[in-house]
Amino acid sequence: MTGAAVSAHRTVLGLDPGSRHFGWGIVRRIGTKLVHVAHGIVHPSLEGSFAERLVVIETDLMAVLAQHGPTHAAIEGLFFAKDAQAAAKLGHARGVALLVCARAGLPIAEYPPARVKRTIAGGGRAAKEQVAQMVRVILGLREVPAADAADALAVALTHLSDSRFVSPPPRS
Amino acid sequence: MTGAAVSAHRTVLGLDPGSRHFGWGIVRRIGTKLVHVAHGIVHPSLEGSFAERLVVIETDLMAVLAQHGPTHAAIEGLFFAKDAQAAAKLGHARGVALLVCARAGLPIAEYPPARVKRTIAGGGRAAKEQVAQMVRVILGLREVPAADAADALAVALTHLSDSRFVSPPPRS
Repeated sequence: MTGAAVSAHRTVLGLDPGSRHFGWGIVRRIGTKLVHVAHGIVHPSLEGSFAERLVVIETDLMAVLAQHGPTHAAIEGLFFAKDAQAAAKLGHARGVALLVCARAGLPIAEYPPARVKRTIAGGGRAAKEQVAQMVRVILGLREVPAADAADALAVALTHLSDSRFVSPPPRS
Repeated sequence: MTGAAVSAHRTVLGLDPGSRHFGWGIVRRIGTKLVHVAHGIVHPSLEGSFAERLVVIETDLMAVLAQHGPTHAAIEGLFFAKDAQAAAKLGHARGVALLVCARAGLPIAEYPPARVKRTIAGGGRAAKEQVAQMVRVILGLREVPAADAADALAVALTHLSDSRFVSPPPRS
């Protein structure tokens, strides 16, 4: 019973990092219902330096935390085959997000992209549009969220459907 | 004359990012003299999560800024041929460093690793030990600094010897 009571208030911040478009989405589990709370995309101005863009990402994510008070965070793991330069750039934005979440004391879960796709769209190689469409259906949204925000909601949903997360093992 | 007066107080924080060993070093230019201020290496505990290590890096770098008040920052640019996974990990730590410096309003200069080696050791392919040895000589240190801190001091020295930085063009 304690486990159910705890899970009734889980609010997960899903993150889809990028230095130009940083997607975020928040989903709350109320009993067995999955409720959409909010989503958005941080678009740092390209006029500032790369470092200044990281400051915008930090500031905006802190505002999201302050406004919506998520209890957990979820993010895609580093399982990709991009070139080193692109991976490093992504790492900068991802590092800022992990920093903000860890500083706020949020437990952070990581899921491989294929796992997110399989959970949301039924197949590990589903197209981005298909994932976004399923996110819309699962959360009962009127419109399909923009790609980066849809990916963020998808990883939040993946976390909320993870049996290890939803039903933690009883303490011995 | 104004340019000389300004450069008399330049204090550069050099950074050599890494998620396990994060080197930093501070060099001040007083007139034409280069004065060693401090250097160190942040070693986040491997017991915490990766995100928690980023928090340690942020906290320690903020303490360095508070204690030594650098006026500028310098860091090696992203010119490497590591694999994507390593590049992404490095990017996380580097992103936190850029964030801390940008938030503090420090201008951040980037130099290719080969440029740093050429400036300090006379050749773009100098060995790490050779760079560290030259850093010791240039700054008149008793001991050769540990590798990560030596690299951080080297990039700070590179910035302080950059003619564009030392002698800014006169304002028109």
